[in-house]
Amino acid sequence: MVDYPDILRALGGSRTEGFLRSVEGKTPIFVCTIATTETAKVPGISAAGKNPEFTDYTPAADMEYLYYGRCRCIDGVPVTPDGIPTPALITRAAVRLSDLPVLVVDGGSRIKPQVPFLDLGGQPGMDIRTGQAVRNADSVFERATTLGRNLAKASDYLVLAESIPGGTTTALSVMLAVGLDAEGKVSSSMPDNPHKLKLSVVRQAMDSAHLHKGDLKGRPLEAVAKVGDPVQVSVAGLAVGAASEVPVILAGGTQMAAVLAIINKIDQSLMDSLAIGTTRWVIRDPQSNLVALVRQVGDIPVMAADLNFGASRHSGLRAYESGVVKEGVGAGGAAICSMMKTNGKVTKSFLQEQIEQEYERIVNRR
Amino acid sequence: MVDYPDILRALGGSRTEGFLRSVEGKTPIFVCTIATTETAKVPGISAAGKNPEFTDYTPAADMEYLYYGRCRCIDGVPVTPDGIPTPALITRAAVRLSDLPVLVVDGGSRIKPQVPFLDLGGQPGMDIRTGQAVRNADSVFERATTLGRNLAKASDYLVLAESIPGGTTTALSVMLAVGLDAEGKVSSSMPDNPHKLKLSVVRQAMDSAHLHKGDLKGRPLEAVAKVGDPVQVSVAGLAVGAASEVPVILAGGTQMAAVLAIINKIDQSLMDSLAIGTTRWVIRDPQSNLVALVRQVGDIPVMAADLNFGASRHSGLRAYESGVVKEGVGAGGAAICSMMKTNGKVTKSFLQEQIEQEYERIVNRR
Repeated sequence: MVDYPDILRALGGSRTEGFLRSVEGKTPIFVCTIATTETAKVPGISAAGKNPEFTDYTPAADMEYLYYGRCRCIDGVPVTPDGIPTPALITRAAVRLSDLPVLVVDGGSRIKPQVPFLDLGGQPGMDIRTGQAVRNADSVFERATTLGRNLAKASDYLVLAESIPGGTTTALSVMLAVGLDAEGKVSSSMPDNPHKLKLSVVRQAMDSAHLHKGDLKGRPLEAVAKVGDPVQVSVAGLAVGAASEVPVILAGGTQMAAVLAIINKIDQSLMDSLAIGTTRWVIRDPQSNLVALVRQVGDIPVMAADLNFGASRHSGLRAYESGVVKEGVGAGGAAICSMMKTNGKVTKSFLQEQIEQEYERIVNRR
Repeated sequence: MVDYPDILRALGGSRTEGFLRSVEGKTPIFVCTIATTETAKVPGISAAGKNPEFTDYTPAADMEYLYYGRCRCIDGVPVTPDGIPTPALITRAAVRLSDLPVLVVDGGSRIKPQVPFLDLGGQPGMDIRTGQAVRNADSVFERATTLGRNLAKASDYLVLAESIPGGTTTALSVMLAVGLDAEGKVSSSMPDNPHKLKLSVVRQAMDSAHLHKGDLKGRPLEAVAKVGDPVQVSVAGLAVGAASEVPVILAGGTQMAAVLAIINKIDQSLMDSLAIGTTRWVIRDPQSNLVALVRQVGDIPVMAADLNFGASRHSGLRAYESGVVKEGVGAGGAAICSMMKTNGKVTKSFLQEQIEQEYERIVNRR
């Protein structure tokens, strides 16, 4: 029995150990769902792109990089406005080290990735301030459940990741709409979390949708349709389709608390099959509180890969220690799974060295 | 050790037994690739649709039926001009009996299925008489290999099926272009195989592409691009991506001989991992010769589900015994896999009874 000291346990107590035992040595499918939302273009909301307009390209570029080691729809790789590279770097190192199968799901992207991807018939998300954020949320959800059911038949468990700039803001609005105390608790890709700006955008969204906090606590898909984003409904659908058959790790930060809340409202019985896998940067973040969000839904396992780039050779990675990026493209979940699949043979230091090398490879290419 | 008496062995000798042992009791992913080609609209070429224009809907409708038990883009289910229902009936019964995971790949369809599907960035196939049948064949092939590699990591083996009306005509032209003696050997969804018509269409295609038999024997993807269809390049790519890791069953009739020829020209070392799975109606067909086609490529296992609808309660199924339909949507391969996955618990008579019931369900719905 391996202890997995490089996986931090943030919530779930003994349930976390049981969850880890249920997946150790097994092979998951790593499913990354992408989408875009116009919400990401509100200046100051997202650092997942070198400028707001660029956020349309980030999810597609992330997927191209994940599969091929280089992007096709852009030069280089996605970076923050300060040039810090995408967390897909971590994801790629992790999935390669442990030879994880990867599938890409498009929940609704303005720019399509030049990779094979699963189409759910979704549309790019609109600015939540319109109060009409996601078209055909019901049919996207239904197709996602069909897909989740079939992927569950093919695998030991599923890891559900995301790439959507602006996703913490849409997470905030959905969580408020279904009644969670989420103010000031969502994370950010920036060191200085723009909580005030997010809350102001969310208030405009709620006003446009004629919503008060908790109004949609029994109607989570309506919450997504009005003030959410296409990733939420896709990942929730995948989980609802799969979790009655196999364990499911929601691989992401506070966005996954919103997804968890949606799933919980649809089928509470699935909670026992779910866990959240993220990074140390998220669970140690003083400016957000993933555990407080999850706890409002249920005491499910929240685990974090104990990655630390403080001793990195590269300033672009050391920057993660000052709160840039933190999570995305399932970086934390992929790191956890690479440890679990190899029964602990992949350690944090081994993974960190691979990430260093991957960083050098992409920087030299630029 | 089960003998699988309901699986006919048509080619491969002892290799077939080895292949069966390598997959028995295992769980494959059943991957059905769909596309359309304008070639199917040549009057008299295809019976996979109640009229030529309708063939655009057949693949999408097949996939909707496979997932949901009813079509969404059409009323009822796809039928031949005489009202004989789609072989997806067989496929659905088989995948449900053995709980197979199903994924849909779109290689290039004019009508998109209302199900989750994997997009390879392909376009609907053009009439081969233009000599420019498949756009961006190289990039579709590359994406398919990426997908095949990832699906192989997630499963014990792959079953690669197809639904494309007109596919035996495009198979004929590709096989001639790469140098096989294929004249008069491809199958048909009609009892009277229109060999003369097919050959005349293929000759026009070869003329437009300035090709003589065998001209492209070293360039199979160019053969597809000029005189093939999008399914061929997609399924070949999936197989090339997967077959170095896991066994692959090409689930179809003479169309799969064309796919096999393409794979063989790209990487001969993969032949040891491949088999063809089809129906008795194909291998016993006096008007076509799958075995003679496959033998020109290699002595790989050719297996057939020994389905027989002669004693069916329904004329729409008994018609299969007079040579209508014969194969499609991986019907034969799905039947074989349902037997193999259950270590022989699913027998031909059990499967046939399920198909009877499925037939009654859809007829009563109409």
